[in-house]
Amino acid sequence: MTTQRHALSVTRAENFAAWYQAVVGEADLAEDSGVRGCMIIRPWGYGIWQRMQELLDRRFRETGHENCYFPLFIPLSYIAKEAEHVEGFAKEMAVVTHHRLKTIDGVLQPDPDARLEEPLVVRPTSETVIGAAFQRWIRSHRDLPLLLNQWANVVRWEMRPRLFLRTVEFLWQEGHTAHATAEEALEETRRMLEVYRSVSEDSLAMPVVAGEKPPHERFPGADNTFSIEAMMQDGKALQAGTAHYLGTNFSRAQNIRFQTERGDLALAYTTSWGATTRLVGGVVMTHGDDDGLRLPPIIAPRQIVIVPILRDRPEDASVIEYCETLAQELGATVAFGEAVRALADRKPGRSVDKRWGWLKRGVPIVCEIGGRDVASGSVSFIRRDRARKGDKIEFATMPRAELVRAASALLAEIQSALHGEARARLEANIRTDLATFADLEAYYGGTGGAPAGTSESAAGADESGSAESFRGWALVPWSRPEGAALDAVERQLKSLKLTVRVAPLEQGSLEGRRCIFSDVPAKEWVLVGRAY
Amino acid sequence: MTTQRHALSVTRAENFAAWYQAVVGEADLAEDSGVRGCMIIRPWGYGIWQRMQELLDRRFRETGHENCYFPLFIPLSYIAKEAEHVEGFAKEMAVVTHHRLKTIDGVLQPDPDARLEEPLVVRPTSETVIGAAFQRWIRSHRDLPLLLNQWANVVRWEMRPRLFLRTVEFLWQEGHTAHATAEEALEETRRMLEVYRSVSEDSLAMPVVAGEKPPHERFPGADNTFSIEAMMQDGKALQAGTAHYLGTNFSRAQNIRFQTERGDLALAYTTSWGATTRLVGGVVMTHGDDDGLRLPPIIAPRQIVIVPILRDRPEDASVIEYCETLAQELGATVAFGEAVRALADRKPGRSVDKRWGWLKRGVPIVCEIGGRDVASGSVSFIRRDRARKGDKIEFATMPRAELVRAASALLAEIQSALHGEARARLEANIRTDLATFADLEAYYGGTGGAPAGTSESAAGADESGSAESFRGWALVPWSRPEGAALDAVERQLKSLKLTVRVAPLEQGSLEGRRCIFSDVPAKEWVLVGRAY
Repeated sequence: MTTQRHALSVTRAENFAAWYQAVVGEADLAEDSGVRGCMIIRPWGYGIWQRMQELLDRRFRETGHENCYFPLFIPLSYIAKEAEHVEGFAKEMAVVTHHRLKTIDGVLQPDPDARLEEPLVVRPTSETVIGAAFQRWIRSHRDLPLLLNQWANVVRWEMRPRLFLRTVEFLWQEGHTAHATAEEALEETRRMLEVYRSVSEDSLAMPVVAGEKPPHERFPGADNTFSIEAMMQDGKALQAGTAHYLGTNFSRAQNIRFQTERGDLALAYTTSWGATTRLVGGVVMTHGDDDGLRLPPIIAPRQIVIVPILRDRPEDASVIEYCETLAQELGATVAFGEAVRALADRKPGRSVDKRWGWLKRGVPIVCEIGGRDVASGSVSFIRRDRARKGDKIEFATMPRAELVRAASALLAEIQSALHGEARARLEANIRTDLATFADLEAYYGGTGGAPAGTSESAAGADESGSAESFRGWALVPWSRPEGAALDAVERQLKSLKLTVRVAPLEQGSLEGRRCIFSDVPAKEWVLVGRAY
Repeated sequence: MTTQRHALSVTRAENFAAWYQAVVGEADLAEDSGVRGCMIIRPWGYGIWQRMQELLDRRFRETGHENCYFPLFIPLSYIAKEAEHVEGFAKEMAVVTHHRLKTIDGVLQPDPDARLEEPLVVRPTSETVIGAAFQRWIRSHRDLPLLLNQWANVVRWEMRPRLFLRTVEFLWQEGHTAHATAEEALEETRRMLEVYRSVSEDSLAMPVVAGEKPPHERFPGADNTFSIEAMMQDGKALQAGTAHYLGTNFSRAQNIRFQTERGDLALAYTTSWGATTRLVGGVVMTHGDDDGLRLPPIIAPRQIVIVPILRDRPEDASVIEYCETLAQELGATVAFGEAVRALADRKPGRSVDKRWGWLKRGVPIVCEIGGRDVASGSVSFIRRDRARKGDKIEFATMPRAELVRAASALLAEIQSALHGEARARLEANIRTDLATFADLEAYYGGTGGAPAGTSESAAGADESGSAESFRGWALVPWSRPEGAALDAVERQLKSLKLTVRVAPLEQGSLEGRRCIFSDVPAKEWVLVGRAY
């Protein structure tokens, strides 16, 4: 088993999409529920999401936000009102029309006598219902800023669902805030973008580029939309968190006004921002390898798992005892400011299967303890971030006391190694040398084009027979086209399956640069790429 | 302000239902959303719920359960299948029939072309969809026990919604487990009942009686239903947590089978158990007084709030500084094993209004700091559990260092005092001397009947003009009637608006006792009372 080629039946290079499905399944993250487009998040996947929730929630509280909860259902009239004000408003929503079932002619069905007078929409987002509450709650400048967040499920009728990445129902948080001035609201928007950026980089070890969306990629009704974009191992972008500055667009539609210090009535400036269970998919596609998931220790539900090697002999008792006390000792140490999450896995089953189970789930350190370890007072373990040396699994061995002392530092090292690897891939795969649209076409158009300098760990880099060669992103100068000119650019990009992801917040010099589309002097750098 | 009669516009004695609404509103717990039967849980109310979640979740994990997440939507066919197997299956559910909106003749409406082939029900509970997963996941005795829990929103089309107590949408946790033997499943059911009992008593300071429901009050499909029942200040019972032993009823309907150690196939034994946002309503009606909410410190989002008395003078700076550093010092101390949650309230507003705001929200210790306190290095504070002496608010004063040292003990004292007060009320208001149905009628029937020995703190006990006199519960011997005899008992009880709450787990001697309904020898004691 230690010399098997891969733990998964399909590699990233062979078929990235199938590999993703395999990791999600083999790591017990989620599965299809049998309900169209809805997933079951299994305990290991939910454990990762709960860690993300804790980390984000802490940051929300530190930045002055309070949690609350608004209704699942939104009256159709609220949606109709918003649709009037917001162009490009999506209408794929689950609609509740009845409030009772009845057996008629032996068939259970919606009771025709229980039709709702006004249909209810299952929230796709809560702007409308929260806005209506803001309208009631906000009277004076003393009520501002109003800084709320909710953790909730939302529903969007996606046509091509994929586990975590695009599901009909998903879990998320949505922040909604109101401010007295445009400056404060814009500052809030950028602050929350920074929360997403730093949690993504520092906790999920998922490097991102933070920036602003071009006008045609904004949230409908937003004045500015910002996002963080992560690079998956197939080169595609994953939008991993968004923050919208809504100006007074929603407050005008919803009549959210306050009395200023001078006594007159003014519209509040609002923001909204969100991150979803999609982040779990991002972690899979950022850190997974052909043996399954690799989890950054900060978000791993278990950071160290200890597997006893049992032989149905009397000495098994001492092995189990050794594992249990080791788990306790490790649990008494602290990593990243919290108790280390260690587990001695006493479930029935062969130790080699259990080891592979935990490796596939991405546990950062997997220990395997047999009689020899007990005799010598040592611990054999696998670091999941570098589990293999060639075809073989690489075990390290340490005296037990030393491992307990070193655990925190080891976990920090793994966290940092995963981040470093992903950051190197991101940085190596943003082309900055494509100066014309023809260059873009040459890079993204052909299937046989020269692969960009992929990092060692990138899918396809060390594999022959790669189905698709790796394409990252391109950072190109453009002139912020509008109207028909922007439509033309969109069409051009679409022909290559590309979209403008963001104009990065950190902009390099544009000196002498011309727009890659219109050849007029450029106004900013934008990232283009394929995306989930 | 300190001599005002009450902080609320209505007292418990005047109108308990209106008082409840007033506390929920004035303490910023929740409000109607404008969406039929759905509430907005405001930050203070949600903070209390989050504390309850943390406390329960910790206990669930300690007892070996893992969190997961199942879909919001349940296909109608699943429900139809369950309805076949389960008598008394409720059919008031929200039904999704369309997946798109469309503007037709200028009116936004469900798109007739987007009608679902199979309607989806918004989960009223997840037995069916979780059972279907159990059927897939459970193969062998090695897969058992399977111990899952989910935190979720559910929807039941209640006709008379009341904030927290009965809402169309509510938040809850639902545990679902599968076991190899009946004994293990029954043990699990009792274990979770005990978790609810102890969290309710020890953390919510809400005394309860744990027991088993009579057959006609069971969850449809359960072999046994257990619950904890809390006594509200109007004497009514609130069912505050339930645990169901489902035997093989659900596993038979859903074909949840496993290979035993001996190699044959057997049905799994399942359980389910849940607690909801209704608990927040229970805390209000257990601890609230005519000045608003009183919160047990363990579940208070803020345990100590410090209000600076500011006078728009230069010395304000030193008052603010004093409050801020006091909050920091208190936050560095530990109560109930966690950092004390202290806040210096620097929001704009008059200090007296802020003080009353926090008292109404139930903060256990509210400090008020003026220039004199700063000068003398002391702290004036109000203990919310005994805020008044007669008509006046009672302030205590302590040297600052002493308060910081004593904070943890003070909070423990308040927790204990609230619990003791509620327990005394519960114990004083269970009649055990009603030996015949005529006695029950005399006690519950007349409006002018002699009030039961109400405790001092019970609503109505110290108020004249009480609209309803206080009626607690009665513990009566019965013979476990079945069939038509049970129906007759139900009718009798209904005439007094009573129900059998539970047969308490702790049963006293039945020696010589006869059934209060049938006059045959009794088989057990049951609690009867009015209920929410």
